[in-house]
Amino acid sequence: MAAFDARGNGADRVAGEFELIARLTGGIESRPDVALGIGDDAALLDFGADSLLVATVDAQVAGRHFVLGIATPEEVGHKSLAVNLSDIAAMGGEPLWALVSLLVPPALESAVLDRVYAGLRALARRCGVAIVGGNVAATSGPLTLDVVLLGRAARGRALTRSGGRPGDLVLVTGELGAAAAGVLALVTQPRAGLLAPDILARVRRAMAAPEPRVGIGRALAASGAATAMLDISDGLASDLWHLCARSDVGAVIDAADIPISLDARAVCSVYGRDAVELALTGGEDYELLFAVPPARRDDALAAVGAAGGTARVIGELTADAGSLLLRRPGGALEPLPADGWDHLRFRAAESDT
Amino acid sequence: MAAFDARGNGADRVAGEFELIARLTGGIESRPDVALGIGDDAALLDFGADSLLVATVDAQVAGRHFVLGIATPEEVGHKSLAVNLSDIAAMGGEPLWALVSLLVPPALESAVLDRVYAGLRALARRCGVAIVGGNVAATSGPLTLDVVLLGRAARGRALTRSGGRPGDLVLVTGELGAAAAGVLALVTQPRAGLLAPDILARVRRAMAAPEPRVGIGRALAASGAATAMLDISDGLASDLWHLCARSDVGAVIDAADIPISLDARAVCSVYGRDAVELALTGGEDYELLFAVPPARRDDALAAVGAAGGTARVIGELTADAGSLLLRRPGGALEPLPADGWDHLRFRAAESDT
Repeated sequence: MAAFDARGNGADRVAGEFELIARLTGGIESRPDVALGIGDDAALLDFGADSLLVATVDAQVAGRHFVLGIATPEEVGHKSLAVNLSDIAAMGGEPLWALVSLLVPPALESAVLDRVYAGLRALARRCGVAIVGGNVAATSGPLTLDVVLLGRAARGRALTRSGGRPGDLVLVTGELGAAAAGVLALVTQPRAGLLAPDILARVRRAMAAPEPRVGIGRALAASGAATAMLDISDGLASDLWHLCARSDVGAVIDAADIPISLDARAVCSVYGRDAVELALTGGEDYELLFAVPPARRDDALAAVGAAGGTARVIGELTADAGSLLLRRPGGALEPLPADGWDHLRFRAAESDT
Repeated sequence: MAAFDARGNGADRVAGEFELIARLTGGIESRPDVALGIGDDAALLDFGADSLLVATVDAQVAGRHFVLGIATPEEVGHKSLAVNLSDIAAMGGEPLWALVSLLVPPALESAVLDRVYAGLRALARRCGVAIVGGNVAATSGPLTLDVVLLGRAARGRALTRSGGRPGDLVLVTGELGAAAAGVLALVTQPRAGLLAPDILARVRRAMAAPEPRVGIGRALAASGAATAMLDISDGLASDLWHLCARSDVGAVIDAADIPISLDARAVCSVYGRDAVELALTGGEDYELLFAVPPARRDDALAAVGAAGGTARVIGELTADAGSLLLRRPGGALEPLPADGWDHLRFRAAESDT
């Protein structure tokens, strides 16, 4: 779930999904109990309880977000929930309840569906999520899993995209690029024997079954150290644009500080691709990107560490709204492209499975 | 959203969607805050507030639940929300917030999508619903609208499928069959000039843009007169099976008392179809089917009337669980078939629009 009214130079390139949602929902009617509506990772709703209700929806379409045969059915089920868990994580929320809507092509074997659901249920169990609603409809199109996830966030502690301030450090959890490397090596340009089997296995797993950073997101929200946060689904560059647009700031990112997965580097090396570009634009990392005032850096890092994760400073926010720059190792600054993964663009090698 | 573990004679015929959901979700993990999970029109969730949270999801697939060209884009948007409003109505709940997930084929003109969303927003506005989340994904399949609706229901007042008791009267709101007549006359067997234009226009509208009974459902819940309720989406027969299965009762329905739309009768007459059968099995009426102890009948009718609706007694619940009978005008009893509209069965004339 993502939408922002794109403005400015690089942001104009964030086309398709974001602009379409912005157009469809422009000037949309709200209610006083909507604390945060369309335009962030999840909505924040006031149901009159101690916590705010967090709600998000995301669809996984066969041939577009997964390919059966490359991903196992269990991984497909896992990912359909994981991408929503990642949205709740990005708000610092606690996931509670899921509703699962399936669109099923008639030719799909029911045993495959059983395995998809088993993968979904396994991740739900591990994260304490109850599946409370289901819908199944036949479709002449590809297998699609549309999952809604509800959760809670402490009032005043939920992290949004809009709280970043000039001078805040920009941090990212984990490592980037492995999922995009998986797409490259297994979907768009699969070439047998190019890569060591263990590398191939790891980038495949990163693409097929991302691990949502729920505990880290909650720890960051509880620490009070972060000012803004979102998850990296569209790509570091694109998602940084979202954060900056909503926070009305600019940013400078140090290319040398971006934590790129060693497997992604290995794949890029074999394919003759630039690893920094892959990490910036590949998408589907499902790591957290967040802003922290310099004085709170150690608190944020401690919170991430206590939740079992890692995080790294990759740059800082500036007062120059609309200006996103990449600092190369020699010190040269260049515009940071906003081209992430736009979910309306079809990929070359996609098929309907 | 519908699932029950089908048992007994006629219920065995409720195949496909219901059995599949039951199999996929059998023994599913829950949480203490899930007051009612999968198996009713909507889930009831305890968020620690005065009211329970009500949550439901339903998908509308082009060529299956609507046909663009027969339905206007605005009606498609209307219906995608209306079917979910009907599920909240069936619990006696108040709708609050919607999340809308769109699956868009690349060839679809964006102006069509604007009109779909306009229809959705118009109904949302009228019902006081805020659209708080959106997702758009490309698909190689048909246009699909997957809507999640959240609402609230007073604790202890929410109506489910499981409260019916032997001796309760069975009532239904409004009139049945017009939507199914629309499918017959415009989708499965369209024949020009057979029907008067005004009849054709009304059955088309009933099919394309059903009116959810939100106010009536809330009034019935507030009256405390009804013991069980659900909406008629799959067909009177099939949905009565659901109510009886969950309430562990049987039922006898008087064929002569089923309120059949005059337009549906006219269409059946021209097409040589049995109007009672159409009303029993056609589906997509989105009227409310509910049970009321005889002593509370007048209270229930008064509540429906005060909300601007009509309702009619069509039979009663019996202690003979699993036995659903249809009493013909002469007094003869015959088994009531459970064949409603099963959303996994494709219809003959469907196309992908």
